Amino acid sequence: MLNLEKIYQARYVLKDIVRTTDLIPAQNIKPGCNVYLKTENLQKTGSFKIRGASYKMSQLSEEEKKHGVIACSAGNHAQGVALAAQSAGIPAVICLPEGAPISKVEATRSYGAQVVLVPGVYDDAYAEALRLRDEKGYTFIHPFDDELVIAGQGTIGLEILDQLDDVDVVVVPVGGGGLISGVAYAIKNLKPQVKVYGVQSEGAASMAVSLEEDKITCLDKVRTVADGIQVKEPGEHTFDYCRQYVDEIVTVSDDEVATAILKLIETQKLITEGAGAVSVAAVMFDKIPVEGKNVVCLLSGGNIDVTILSKVIERGLLKSGRSDTLAIQLEDRPGQLAKVSALLAKLGANVVSVFYEKASEGSGITDCVLRINIETRDQAHIDFVHKSLAEAGIHVIG
Amino acid sequence: MLNLEKIYQARYVLKDIVRTTDLIPAQNIKPGCNVYLKTENLQKTGSFKIRGASYKMSQLSEEEKKHGVIACSAGNHAQGVALAAQSAGIPAVICLPEGAPISKVEATRSYGAQVVLVPGVYDDAYAEALRLRDEKGYTFIHPFDDELVIAGQGTIGLEILDQLDDVDVVVVPVGGGGLISGVAYAIKNLKPQVKVYGVQSEGAASMAVSLEEDKITCLDKVRTVADGIQVKEPGEHTFDYCRQYVDEIVTVSDDEVATAILKLIETQKLITEGAGAVSVAAVMFDKIPVEGKNVVCLLSGGNIDVTILSKVIERGLLKSGRSDTLAIQLEDRPGQLAKVSALLAKLGANVVSVFYEKASEGSGITDCVLRINIETRDQAHIDFVHKSLAEAGIHVIG
Repeated sequence: MLNLEKIYQARYVLKDIVRTTDLIPAQNIKPGCNVYLKTENLQKTGSFKIRGASYKMSQLSEEEKKHGVIACSAGNHAQGVALAAQSAGIPAVICLPEGAPISKVEATRSYGAQVVLVPGVYDDAYAEALRLRDEKGYTFIHPFDDELVIAGQGTIGLEILDQLDDVDVVVVPVGGGGLISGVAYAIKNLKPQVKVYGVQSEGAASMAVSLEEDKITCLDKVRTVADGIQVKEPGEHTFDYCRQYVDEIVTVSDDEVATAILKLIETQKLITEGAGAVSVAAVMFDKIPVEGKNVVCLLSGGNIDVTILSKVIERGLLKSGRSDTLAIQLEDRPGQLAKVSALLAKLGANVVSVFYEKASEGSGITDCVLRINIETRDQAHIDFVHKSLAEAGIHVIG
Repeated sequence: MLNLEKIYQARYVLKDIVRTTDLIPAQNIKPGCNVYLKTENLQKTGSFKIRGASYKMSQLSEEEKKHGVIACSAGNHAQGVALAAQSAGIPAVICLPEGAPISKVEATRSYGAQVVLVPGVYDDAYAEALRLRDEKGYTFIHPFDDELVIAGQGTIGLEILDQLDDVDVVVVPVGGGGLISGVAYAIKNLKPQVKVYGVQSEGAASMAVSLEEDKITCLDKVRTVADGIQVKEPGEHTFDYCRQYVDEIVTVSDDEVATAILKLIETQKLITEGAGAVSVAAVMFDKIPVEGKNVVCLLSGGNIDVTILSKVIERGLLKSGRSDTLAIQLEDRPGQLAKVSALLAKLGANVVSVFYEKASEGSGITDCVLRINIETRDQAHIDFVHKSLAEAGIHVIG
């Protein structure tokens, strides 16, 4: 059974292994409340996962430690288990699905774990991990549904209470539910008046659905930019703790997540992965009552692939009216680009890139289409640009 | 005259205005030494500039405070002065060149400053700021060459000594030299055995050149991705302090800076601007002796335009062998893409995007060129991919 004593013991065990991550005030996230960011994206390995894994390993018998541990993950749990094992001097095997990103495989190896690449998807890697456990006598480290792992994650709750005396609301990303179970347990047992909210992605709302139906529910398919919380089914322990200690689970869309990631980059200089930013997305997009409150958003991780990061930045700029692409039909003669450019400059829209294309069927053969990417201030500015171009007789076709 | 008392007084004044930014260990920056990051990119306004500006303003007379302050900047100094003035209840006017990025103008306004957009470049805005100072009686806040501003920046030196008992080396970005003057003064007067290195961009090495020629030297032109330290000429005070207290000033290239920015994103989840990352670039690319040392890299700021950020990420990926573009000449018939894709997958290269183009003159009219962006592990992996494609009879033309 989880209890406060285990969470305090975990804090002691973790003292020299994990960082007490900073709680950073963030004035520009949401007007009308005080937002603070608990920066577990700046934790070792780039996520909170090392906490639960380390505490779990500290409680193994000497015999179990000698045999080593095994885990299955394509993401943060892999790196958390690998570094936790390295810190504790325990051998670790991590099964990853063969298609896992190169960067994650390399990172896991860099912490000294033996990586087994398993053909197929996550479920195949999971099956292989259990097979190896049985064959070799490894201890399996579950990513969330284990009370010792949950106790380890709960240390974040203790730190939040230490770092912000008058906290009113804590907002926590939810995948399988290990993180929020530990955090909510610690906070509700020490300071029950604090509200604890969970956030899932619309495309993978397994805990939200399970709580609504009041039974553990497995989703047919899950799909979200927040791959770190893309979980089909909550755990038995985590479902119970969420039912008992969490005030509500809300959901956010991929576009909202992308906007939150961009906001954190621009105003806080912090990289978060999709899963790490859902807490901020929920506050930004009014999923949670925060007016006048002191609100802690837990940033659970920062391990986002840079290629995805580029795309998220683009999407976030679009979504917040900070960029737009104009398709303009022009006659193919000199001076056309100059005319449009001069007008855009006057309108305060910064031209980022320009492409010429042949026009589509149905237009004059010498006509061309100019595609211009512009930087804008917001959606109102975009509307103003479109209106002004139309008034100047420039034919914007998209 | 600068003295330790002023720097300690500045620390007291700044106590409730600025954040004591975290010192974060960073194991993956450089093997063979212990790197720590002093994260002033996570400071309020995204840079250290608020420190010097706040201390300077605290030392104004009541009469001067009533009249207000003026500054000229297209970047971090603008936001630092604006928030420092707002915190102190002092009116502030900031002159910016008209072409300044929208995001910086908006950020400066958001801190309550009056923004004056001056037609022309930085020098025009500077002239206008001095004119307004004389006309209206504002106090001019110099971005670096002011002993009170320098004392404010020196508080970072005190914090580093508090946060890392056994620091051996401190590496500091250098533009006009205000930051390193304060930091070096504090550190060398308290713990002279610590080495203090400055880092400039190759394209704007005004302090390095001035020290070498032993006189203040104005560069004809400066150009660097690290726009925050793009300064033509050091100050009189800062030149003297650097000559006296700084061990050496080294330089880094734009490509090295881009690689450092990417490294900080991927391994530390931190956004830095070019100027903020030069300290890490210098350590990564062996500009400074760090073997076996405890090394603090000061990340001076994180205010990078997201459009530039996207480009820096791309360039960093290329530079570190993490991405490559293949131009492959193919006959225009079915199955060609499938053949190349299958081979690339076998080679462990992840395809990010594909373009078809008509082939250039001199090749068959139905031939086409396939441009494929791939993700790779490193330069050796790229070489291996090229070699393997050639062996399979695929014609890579670039």
